Amino acid sequence: MKRNILLTIEYDGTHFHGWQRQPGTRTCQGELERVLSILCAQEITIEGTSRTDAGVHALDQKATLRGDFSIPAENIPPAANNLLSGGRNSSRDGDIRIVSAVEAADGFHARFSCRGKKYIYRIRNSRESDVFGRDRCWRISEKLDTDAMRNAAQYIIGTHDFACFQAAGGQERESTVRTVFGLDVIVAGDDIEIHIEGDGFLYNMVRIIAGTLAEAGRGRIAPEYIKEIIEGRDRTKAGPTAPPQGLYLAKVYY
Amino acid sequence: MKRNILLTIEYDGTHFHGWQRQPGTRTCQGELERVLSILCAQEITIEGTSRTDAGVHALDQKATLRGDFSIPAENIPPAANNLLSGGRNSSRDGDIRIVSAVEAADGFHARFSCRGKKYIYRIRNSRESDVFGRDRCWRISEKLDTDAMRNAAQYIIGTHDFACFQAAGGQERESTVRTVFGLDVIVAGDDIEIHIEGDGFLYNMVRIIAGTLAEAGRGRIAPEYIKEIIEGRDRTKAGPTAPPQGLYLAKVYY
Repeated sequence: MKRNILLTIEYDGTHFHGWQRQPGTRTCQGELERVLSILCAQEITIEGTSRTDAGVHALDQKATLRGDFSIPAENIPPAANNLLSGGRNSSRDGDIRIVSAVEAADGFHARFSCRGKKYIYRIRNSRESDVFGRDRCWRISEKLDTDAMRNAAQYIIGTHDFACFQAAGGQERESTVRTVFGLDVIVAGDDIEIHIEGDGFLYNMVRIIAGTLAEAGRGRIAPEYIKEIIEGRDRTKAGPTAPPQGLYLAKVYY
Repeated sequence: MKRNILLTIEYDGTHFHGWQRQPGTRTCQGELERVLSILCAQEITIEGTSRTDAGVHALDQKATLRGDFSIPAENIPPAANNLLSGGRNSSRDGDIRIVSAVEAADGFHARFSCRGKKYIYRIRNSRESDVFGRDRCWRISEKLDTDAMRNAAQYIIGTHDFACFQAAGGQERESTVRTVFGLDVIVAGDDIEIHIEGDGFLYNMVRIIAGTLAEAGRGRIAPEYIKEIIEGRDRTKAGPTAPPQGLYLAKVYY
């Protein structure tokens, strides 16, 4: 009988060429499939919820694993993590781990059953670079106006055609309409976190929104102009794509 | 006229083979000398306060730079950091930076003028591994008794012959007597920080103290037994050398 296991996964994306399996490169999916194939004594493929890019982190990625194998679900995380951490032979060891594994209903699918996701984008707004945060946030030297960023965010919340926030190179999508449930700009000292929740996101959408809010914070885009950018459906009017190392897949909702 | 510049330096030690220059490997001293030689248009050597090992971090390393060059001291950090960060071509870029550079008196020396240092050793006491902290702390799964660690610490404070906490392989020292001014065990949730200040430290002394306090926290060494370990001057009675990634050079006192 085929079993269906839901995995919760955490990773530091710095040393991965993104989520998706690619021959000859180190990817999250590839690493997980490698160790799960050992544990399950068969070739395993998994389906992840979000195909995060190189450098993007995950606090709560999900994946489903289907197959006919005998290992109890609760034994998968410790056994897999032991293989993934590799005894600290290099600084990459331990940069991905399976947080939990539970049996899921037969029809459940990590991506297709997903009802929404939350991402966090971290900005460090400081003239000083931060040697420990260099791979974990986007540093912006120029002082950002976080009130302007919050005002700009209000125009993004809701159901819109978000073609303006879609990068080329993603999958073909039937529709570019998405619903952003919430978009908060949270400030703690020099740290600015953008929290965004939605029913789905276009390719690079969160990074383009982060880049656009940063432009609003710099005073280069007026908050009201965001409405026009969205209505114009024109990627070139929005801000730049913020760098990957500030982005965290924070929560997947089913 | 020879100038003498005092540099304050911060680094993430993960991708360095330690502080000290070694041909063919990437070291903190080597990287700094490389970029400072470009800026000063002459071969520069620097003297650091502490020869940190591979994987050890610094929040406040100091080094002196002597030579006859014209660049104003305040221009050194931005120019050097620009060369050190290298435009983020790899995740190593930006893992070391010069925080400040000031003119120092002629006789001032980063190491010989040093009157004391503070180190912080970070432990993450959790059954769960932490993908983001894997290079920044020592994770210990077994629950530590932090009261026992604090009690053990009391026996270490003061002036003692610390031969028991000295690893082989360091420089020959005339004396193994040192004074530990303060040793605190600070707990915040699952994070335990050992803060230690002293007039000087033997080779690996802080990491052996951290390993010994962890043994006390595990109940394998009774706090009172620390006195005997110190008096016995026997390295084999003390705990293991804690791993390098938990150690931070936190302050240098002049």
